[in-house]
Amino acid sequence: MTAQRQLHLAAFGALGGNHTASWRHPATASAQVLTAAYFKEFARLAERGLFDLIFFPDVLAVAQDRNDVGFQQISSNIPFRAEPISTLALIAGVTEHIGLVGTVSTAHTQPFNVARTFAWLDHLSNGRMGWNIVTTASEAESRNFGVSLAAHEARYARAEEYVDVVRKLWDSWQDDAIIDDKAGARYVDASRVRAIHHHGKYFDVEGPLNVPRPPQGHPVLFQAGASDIGRSFAAQTADAVFFAAQTAAEAKRIGADIKRLAQTHGRSPDHVRLLPGVLVIVAETETQALEKQAALGQLIDRQAGLAFLYELIGVDLSAWPLDGPFPTLDPASIPGIKSRYELLHDMAKREGMNLGQVIERVASAAGHRVVVGDPQQVADQLLEWFDAGLVDGYAIMWPHLPGGLEDFVNLVVPALQKRGVYRTAYAGDTLRAHLALPTLASPI
Amino acid sequence: MTAQRQLHLAAFGALGGNHTASWRHPATASAQVLTAAYFKEFARLAERGLFDLIFFPDVLAVAQDRNDVGFQQISSNIPFRAEPISTLALIAGVTEHIGLVGTVSTAHTQPFNVARTFAWLDHLSNGRMGWNIVTTASEAESRNFGVSLAAHEARYARAEEYVDVVRKLWDSWQDDAIIDDKAGARYVDASRVRAIHHHGKYFDVEGPLNVPRPPQGHPVLFQAGASDIGRSFAAQTADAVFFAAQTAAEAKRIGADIKRLAQTHGRSPDHVRLLPGVLVIVAETETQALEKQAALGQLIDRQAGLAFLYELIGVDLSAWPLDGPFPTLDPASIPGIKSRYELLHDMAKREGMNLGQVIERVASAAGHRVVVGDPQQVADQLLEWFDAGLVDGYAIMWPHLPGGLEDFVNLVVPALQKRGVYRTAYAGDTLRAHLALPTLASPI
Repeated sequence: MTAQRQLHLAAFGALGGNHTASWRHPATASAQVLTAAYFKEFARLAERGLFDLIFFPDVLAVAQDRNDVGFQQISSNIPFRAEPISTLALIAGVTEHIGLVGTVSTAHTQPFNVARTFAWLDHLSNGRMGWNIVTTASEAESRNFGVSLAAHEARYARAEEYVDVVRKLWDSWQDDAIIDDKAGARYVDASRVRAIHHHGKYFDVEGPLNVPRPPQGHPVLFQAGASDIGRSFAAQTADAVFFAAQTAAEAKRIGADIKRLAQTHGRSPDHVRLLPGVLVIVAETETQALEKQAALGQLIDRQAGLAFLYELIGVDLSAWPLDGPFPTLDPASIPGIKSRYELLHDMAKREGMNLGQVIERVASAAGHRVVVGDPQQVADQLLEWFDAGLVDGYAIMWPHLPGGLEDFVNLVVPALQKRGVYRTAYAGDTLRAHLALPTLASPI
Repeated sequence: MTAQRQLHLAAFGALGGNHTASWRHPATASAQVLTAAYFKEFARLAERGLFDLIFFPDVLAVAQDRNDVGFQQISSNIPFRAEPISTLALIAGVTEHIGLVGTVSTAHTQPFNVARTFAWLDHLSNGRMGWNIVTTASEAESRNFGVSLAAHEARYARAEEYVDVVRKLWDSWQDDAIIDDKAGARYVDASRVRAIHHHGKYFDVEGPLNVPRPPQGHPVLFQAGASDIGRSFAAQTADAVFFAAQTAAEAKRIGADIKRLAQTHGRSPDHVRLLPGVLVIVAETETQALEKQAALGQLIDRQAGLAFLYELIGVDLSAWPLDGPFPTLDPASIPGIKSRYELLHDMAKREGMNLGQVIERVASAAGHRVVVGDPQQVADQLLEWFDAGLVDGYAIMWPHLPGGLEDFVNLVVPALQKRGVYRTAYAGDTLRAHLALPTLASPI
């Protein structure tokens, strides 16, 4: 690894922050999370910090009660997320460079609509869009669409065909199809636009798309599937992968697995960016940072922690003793994110944590790594995995917003820049350029 | 009617303009229609002109070939539309007052997603959103979603239940459900949020929505159904109705019908705004305006006109002689917009037009009224129907963009203001306020 290799950073878009107690932090603008001003400030700070991209996760239901009866326990946290696409569209209008990555489920949408919206926004943003593909893993979400939760394999089979259709639609116009010849009365060269005639197991889509080919060719594809089948899908499909890893060994194992799988799918492992999540608590001094972490820990509501754990793994653990071990369950029986269950189970075993301690860790960052310290300490910890070649960068998560992002931009970004691993200005125009991903040639 | 009654204006969001030849007009920014700058300028001009709202239509396919084989004839016009929701979201971030109305089909989307996006944007825009409900009338669109075009009645039956579900979701949170009590660790009062348990013929949706109740209670509902069943649906559902009328007599008949139907659905006829479309060609002098109209007429491509007619009514008329009469067909056999076919048939008979002349008129404004003249003449023509109580305002369409809108704002708006029928500043904050529609109480 040389000093010229560049760190890639995603700014995790959250309402108030990523810690379960974020909204209760005194500096959090919890009363502003339903305003345009909140997202404009978030975006401008992230762009000032030269982040590669802003990323919005999504859930198609209110945060669910841990005992699965609905929504009685939604009270102790902000129980909804930003609608990713419309929020990113708003941000596209007030930013110039930063990438815009939104989560859209393949379970409850149509590929024509999704291909169209990402293509349209890729034009309006000058090539800054990315799609985080999720297959939607909860019963609560399925109930809002009148369907049963499909089996794991079927969800990914649908997602695979879905992405295939979307890519075909993006390629249904050649790059140079628009002529705009006013005198000759020809706006489009129709020979450069074609139907896709897709007839598959899940979808029949005629095409062509009703948007010209996106500036990036294809908007950048992200994935976070971390089960075996999910990781295989990510390796086959994604330009960048989000994942959770608590230790360098975990990051190494997951990253190697994804790169190996990418090769089995005939892809170059260098064309997959690895971006684990990390919650960063930074302050001028280590003491201040530790105090902030402790203060947030004090604000964790046990019910909120249990509910959050339920939302992740889909299993109600409220009957288990908090001072007992983290339960050992059959991974196949986990209705939620299987890989997150396994990560937590491994972590509990490795660090000797009881259930209550696991809940507190989950409440901190949903099982993601937490990095705390002064700017140099944070940079050291981030670069440890990066310099070892385990990751290409991080999806940065926040103890509170917008202040946590502002702290990162003011304190950590200069430290990274001084080490020569982070841009001092945007060099390219598109998200694909920011991430140093190959361009995609126009279809013939 | 008194002078205090206020005219309501919608700015029709189009790519280049609403005339088939708009994109070829020298003043049209045809090379800019895929940029954020184009929509920002459109929105800022419309807001400077104090329009009640911006409205984006939609079609979920490229403009179709007149002989139904696909897309060979897309070359002679801009064959796509702005994606309404993401474009409005972008505009929401760069405007403060103007209403934002987007078309979304009930045929190829899920009510949970649509309720969620409109609610979310209603928050981010401070209560400026409206939904133009369409049922999607073309085979071309259906083919992009792997389904056959549903029968007219079934489309509206689905739409009716769809809107019912969306309204229930918007009401699944009480207005005051968010407490944001950091000290007490309660963000939401869960007793003010409830599932909807909807189980209908077309949809099963559990709820609650994952967005608090929109600032407007319900975003404003628009409809443009003009067949018998479509008009009944509009009268039952919509706060405002778009329609096409060539003459005052037509406007009177359609408006009276909608208001009568509203009453049969138990609604006050005063709570339905009537907004026919009108293409306005205005210049400093009548001569200049007529010259502009003639110049646009010269730019009409016959193939584009036929293709556009096909897109509207779904019937290929290319084999009929242009100098012969407009064909008399069984309205029940019209696969496209039945009411538009009848309007054109009536117009041809009334004005003694042959097929070629009908095509030219369709190419001008898709069958909508065209108003041409100097500012006073345009104001006179707009106010003739308004003063007679036939309409509440208009959806204004453009000969070219952005210049056509700029002309309207600079020339027609002051003329309307001088007559006391049009605001000189925004009085309210929400689209519901702009349109003088009643507020909706929070559910109990």
